[in-house]
Amino acid sequence: MIRSFHPSRSIAATAILLLTAITAWAQESTQVSPPYGFIGAHGEQQRALERRVDAGIESADLDGWLKRLTSAPNHIGSIHNKENADYIASQFRQFGWDTRVETFRVLVAYPDRQKFELLGEHPYAANFTEPAVEGDPDTTQRKDVLPGMEAYSADGDVSAPLIYVNQGLTADYDELARTGLDVKGKIVLVRSSGAGRWVKPRLAEKHGAVGIVIFSDPGEDGYVKGDVYPQGAWRTPRTIQRGTLGIDDTLDARAGARIQAQKKLPGQSIPVVTIGYGDAEVFLRALGGPQVPSRWQGGLPFAYHIGGSGARAHLAVTSDWHWETLYNVIATLRGSDEPDQWVLRGVHHDAWVFGAWDPLAGTTAMLAEAKAIGELYRQGVKPRRTLVFASWDGEELGILGSRAWTDKHADELRRKAVFYLNNDTTSRGFLSAAGAPALARLIGGVAADVRDPETGASVENRLRAKLAVASGEGKGPDPANDLPLSPLGTGSDFVAFTHHLGIPSLHVRYGYDRDGDEQSVPVYHSLYDSYTHYQRFGDPGLKYIDALAKTDARVVLRVANADLLPWRYTDQANVLGKDIDALQAYNRKLGEQARKHNALLDSHAYALAAVSWRGQTEPGRLEDDVPVIDLSALRDAQRRFADSAQAYDRAYASYEDTGTSAGTKTLRRANDALRQVEPALLGEGLSGRPWYRHLLAAPSLKEGYEVSTLPAIRDALDQRKWSDARTAVTRTAQAVEEASRRLAAATDALRPDTR
Amino acid sequence: MIRSFHPSRSIAATAILLLTAITAWAQESTQVSPPYGFIGAHGEQQRALERRVDAGIESADLDGWLKRLTSAPNHIGSIHNKENADYIASQFRQFGWDTRVETFRVLVAYPDRQKFELLGEHPYAANFTEPAVEGDPDTTQRKDVLPGMEAYSADGDVSAPLIYVNQGLTADYDELARTGLDVKGKIVLVRSSGAGRWVKPRLAEKHGAVGIVIFSDPGEDGYVKGDVYPQGAWRTPRTIQRGTLGIDDTLDARAGARIQAQKKLPGQSIPVVTIGYGDAEVFLRALGGPQVPSRWQGGLPFAYHIGGSGARAHLAVTSDWHWETLYNVIATLRGSDEPDQWVLRGVHHDAWVFGAWDPLAGTTAMLAEAKAIGELYRQGVKPRRTLVFASWDGEELGILGSRAWTDKHADELRRKAVFYLNNDTTSRGFLSAAGAPALARLIGGVAADVRDPETGASVENRLRAKLAVASGEGKGPDPANDLPLSPLGTGSDFVAFTHHLGIPSLHVRYGYDRDGDEQSVPVYHSLYDSYTHYQRFGDPGLKYIDALAKTDARVVLRVANADLLPWRYTDQANVLGKDIDALQAYNRKLGEQARKHNALLDSHAYALAAVSWRGQTEPGRLEDDVPVIDLSALRDAQRRFADSAQAYDRAYASYEDTGTSAGTKTLRRANDALRQVEPALLGEGLSGRPWYRHLLAAPSLKEGYEVSTLPAIRDALDQRKWSDARTAVTRTAQAVEEASRRLAAATDALRPDTR
Repeated sequence: MIRSFHPSRSIAATAILLLTAITAWAQESTQVSPPYGFIGAHGEQQRALERRVDAGIESADLDGWLKRLTSAPNHIGSIHNKENADYIASQFRQFGWDTRVETFRVLVAYPDRQKFELLGEHPYAANFTEPAVEGDPDTTQRKDVLPGMEAYSADGDVSAPLIYVNQGLTADYDELARTGLDVKGKIVLVRSSGAGRWVKPRLAEKHGAVGIVIFSDPGEDGYVKGDVYPQGAWRTPRTIQRGTLGIDDTLDARAGARIQAQKKLPGQSIPVVTIGYGDAEVFLRALGGPQVPSRWQGGLPFAYHIGGSGARAHLAVTSDWHWETLYNVIATLRGSDEPDQWVLRGVHHDAWVFGAWDPLAGTTAMLAEAKAIGELYRQGVKPRRTLVFASWDGEELGILGSRAWTDKHADELRRKAVFYLNNDTTSRGFLSAAGAPALARLIGGVAADVRDPETGASVENRLRAKLAVASGEGKGPDPANDLPLSPLGTGSDFVAFTHHLGIPSLHVRYGYDRDGDEQSVPVYHSLYDSYTHYQRFGDPGLKYIDALAKTDARVVLRVANADLLPWRYTDQANVLGKDIDALQAYNRKLGEQARKHNALLDSHAYALAAVSWRGQTEPGRLEDDVPVIDLSALRDAQRRFADSAQAYDRAYASYEDTGTSAGTKTLRRANDALRQVEPALLGEGLSGRPWYRHLLAAPSLKEGYEVSTLPAIRDALDQRKWSDARTAVTRTAQAVEEASRRLAAATDALRPDTR
Repeated sequence: MIRSFHPSRSIAATAILLLTAITAWAQESTQVSPPYGFIGAHGEQQRALERRVDAGIESADLDGWLKRLTSAPNHIGSIHNKENADYIASQFRQFGWDTRVETFRVLVAYPDRQKFELLGEHPYAANFTEPAVEGDPDTTQRKDVLPGMEAYSADGDVSAPLIYVNQGLTADYDELARTGLDVKGKIVLVRSSGAGRWVKPRLAEKHGAVGIVIFSDPGEDGYVKGDVYPQGAWRTPRTIQRGTLGIDDTLDARAGARIQAQKKLPGQSIPVVTIGYGDAEVFLRALGGPQVPSRWQGGLPFAYHIGGSGARAHLAVTSDWHWETLYNVIATLRGSDEPDQWVLRGVHHDAWVFGAWDPLAGTTAMLAEAKAIGELYRQGVKPRRTLVFASWDGEELGILGSRAWTDKHADELRRKAVFYLNNDTTSRGFLSAAGAPALARLIGGVAADVRDPETGASVENRLRAKLAVASGEGKGPDPANDLPLSPLGTGSDFVAFTHHLGIPSLHVRYGYDRDGDEQSVPVYHSLYDSYTHYQRFGDPGLKYIDALAKTDARVVLRVANADLLPWRYTDQANVLGKDIDALQAYNRKLGEQARKHNALLDSHAYALAAVSWRGQTEPGRLEDDVPVIDLSALRDAQRRFADSAQAYDRAYASYEDTGTSAGTKTLRRANDALRQVEPALLGEGLSGRPWYRHLLAAPSLKEGYEVSTLPAIRDALDQRKWSDARTAVTRTAQAVEEASRRLAAATDALRPDTR
């Protein structure tokens, strides 16, 4: 998993789903209605099938697979990653799946030399290796272990003053400017939190830095969060967070040769390394200059200073830019009724080192599902639609495997792909799901049927309990409504499916940490993400891998076997309405905040409120001439979409009442139309990043936010291109209108008179 | 200064005052209207007088006084504290003031033996002395330096398991209970923040603890805030925060003999010590048991645990309970026109050790005012009302000196006292004032006339700038209105004046820290609160002591010379209206929160959302049958009070227009009536603490809050005495009605036909 931002997210932002009433929480779920999308007796048949799948998931298998898959380093180019691909393929074949390994060549850059040294009277050199930890035999391995590093760092060798700039985000550079300091010609030291790491070198370079060092602060995933490994789950002083600077389309295969020739990614020319907080402490303590603003203070036990004068450092990186082979394992079970409708499900198998949390727990779940489903297939219980399971390679270097594969098969996927389910990291805890809003009822229904290993309640009831406690309202969201899903941003293999191809996609995991954050992997991207760590702190007994496999299997089999695809567009229409409101508020705020800021400048308030002996100066002026873009065309489109969705819901209910007698032809017409709805929401690509085509959600352009809703319009606002914003409103509205029309075609198909 | 709670307060809670328009901030203040309370030419005469006082304040004096006063330890019973009292008295005499030293005998308990030791394999003993610091010669002194300790600790000698309970507040004990642990028979270790320290031993005892250790966490005033002394201002690992457990009326002279016999304060029977974070680290690291909830984690560099099993400690305290003499210096300048109207102004002179920040910077300001005013007096420029300046003793042990003096002179004060101005700690920064709401215009007008040393703007304009920046609104509060004052809680010598006697009181200081908190004294109650520390970090050059003296002198001289006492009751009526709204909201919330909490219990949400492997259990049930008390009588009274205040404002304006011709008799009648308004707001004393009589504000009964507004009603709500709450509404309303009638008498006096 490539984490795109800081693990501390609000509970509200990690939304999800559910169904039953609050008073039923602690009771056994007694689901009577059929799963969404199933008509009449098909619902009970499906549930019976799911119980048989559950019975086929064996705990001994899970442990064996996880242990084997994590037994050696698994980065691209490592021996064991290739072995895993072969092993996964052999397992799929053994389970009866039609399996192939598709290979791709990709450009890779790992450093073969890294130096980060404090110069001066008390020289010190950072350490890029992680020591073995007592009680975890895997951590004694050295063979094939990548050092702590940032893949695709530009080569460089600089000696320069060192300066601390908090998280290295735009707001931090603005705040730095108020102290009269800048990073020009300096090496910046930044915390790993707040935004995707790939953002930081580019911003540093834009501000004139000659090098950048990213460190893990103990306030974020070290001792401030909990005991450190091996006593507890969290980062030791020498735990290093590896990562990639290759993201989005920078590593497009066509660009590879040019990038290799230049030995640098576009916009990323300075050397980058990553270090643990034990090393960071030495460098931070050496910094002089003013004390940091309070929000820049981290968890190390001294007052942080900005530096910029005094302490100098030497930073050097040279990398080996070369081509490696990716091994994507693709396994298929042909559908009985609709072989050309593909229900896809994937998780990557490459890792930074052993990768127990990230991603092999997820891979283990997939193997369990594949075995159980394969066994039924052998017994003649076949999915109606074709299942395509994928074990992706190269995710950690920039989501390379799934992108290369979807690129190669794009035309076929446009014709055949119905749905994509993704896993990545997972651990014990609460269900967490993100995806296309129309999938809320599907995952909610599944969650009601899967039992939580810790409490024995359904995972949906447990999640609802958490939301109720967090709400402060004495109850959770209305049980009559599907809980909305979080939108999909970036950071795992769903990106090509949802953002480029417009295939309805879902990303599912289990997890939590002490603060209720489901996204947290305490030793993320380090040597210590091992089998032993996972069994002690990730998911003792692997009971949640078991629960994840049961969840995943239900999701894919419900999509595969549904009479009517389980998309519910009233949920999507509701989400869109809220997204439009949020966009309008954002637009107004852009102007208002700038005007307020400038009013304070005009009245000299910043100057008077500043503390001169801390070197504070006035901030700069903001452009405050921000028009409020007219969104009425989009609102009209949303209303029509909502009407269309309600009409479909009525048609669905009425069809359900009359039973399955109408037959296959009606269902096929309706399903064909349903499949066309989500692709209608693709545009020609976002400005400056044409590969991202979904008009309702995209990774945010701004640092610190994972997802941007209505991104074509929002990007234009952020870039202050008002005319482009108006055009984007028109285009987005047109796409929504088209989606309404396609949905209406599904409704038409279900009408008694047209069946 | 006895700090009653944690230094991190919101800016909003540290409110204040001001007058002129936002656009005038950076410009020279060109005040044209006379100071509030002065008619016609008297205003300009007053301003001319103030300029002469300013000229009499000499910077060399300030430095000499501060250096001398802080040259040795100054606690009650120390040699130098007595010397300071004598010196201050001699200075007042030299300045021409009629001066006497009034002595009182008070019960004192300092420990003569303290032990806090970790038992077991790695024994360790806490250190109660603070080492000398390079560059600060005072810190080498040992003679007469009190150890780190809590005065009035009960004697005790216990060996018991050690347990960490965060800040030791009720919410912490509730949270502890959810882990299945308790403090019965244990020694509790708590952070010093969150509430007055005297609260913590009583709560610990109530929950069954046999001892308590209070420590300074570096997250609150150590390295997390800034560099530690001597590199920076903040607490070192061995900086200890002394304090007193004697607060409120526990040390009433009449109770002294009984307390001495028992060697313990009421409700406080367990031994208590205080330690620095260097020692705390050793004990905290030794704790086993579950990891703490995340909000309990502090700034030390490891994951805190609760303990409760495993680590045991030995805690022993024996104190010498004996009687000491307090020396209050009382200096008077007889008023020319109204000698029996007293304008009082005080600051204490005792300190925990040297006491540069707390309180001798304030004492230095008072000496400067006294000298300048005395010089004018000698030249025949006499205040119209009598000035009474007081240098209090024994504040740190429980506000003993001012309480004893006001107790002795209560009858005379009821007849003569017009006003009380208090200082305590002060440093460079923003003006900060708290007090009776009717004084907002007085301090606002003064603030407009005093120049800020750092920016050259008026201190009022600088404060307004800060509030504007903090507001996020692009501007501060409406410049047409007086900014409301914070209400007075506890923690300094104003308590008897405002809460017991109902004398309009004002508490003034300057200050800030990195987070904009005006209350912060970085080395609060430690050895390092020294002259050197103050000159380096408190107020280099003592320019803000100079500004404070100019502020104070204006305040007392404006009250002393005003034609009409500068109380503005429309401000008080507005504050009361808001306080009633807040009380009503509080009342509703009490019930709503309990009902929401119980709904979560009923639906098993807490149980399902709990993380069982962290040992979390369900919380207990809350009493949710909370009636909404009818406040309409109080609202009616507030409306009449507002009407009465507006009528007075109109009469004042009309009187101002017609000039001073009406003469002394009219003014005396009006002033006599004005003086009766605030005392009308006293009741018979709050339930369970009869010494507190003010019905509109009192120190809060609840931990973590400094001030409670409408305390008679609020106390009853907190104690769930609904019938008492209704009675308190009636009594508070009657007091407000009486205040309205008295204010109407002042209005009557000013009416042309009655003059």
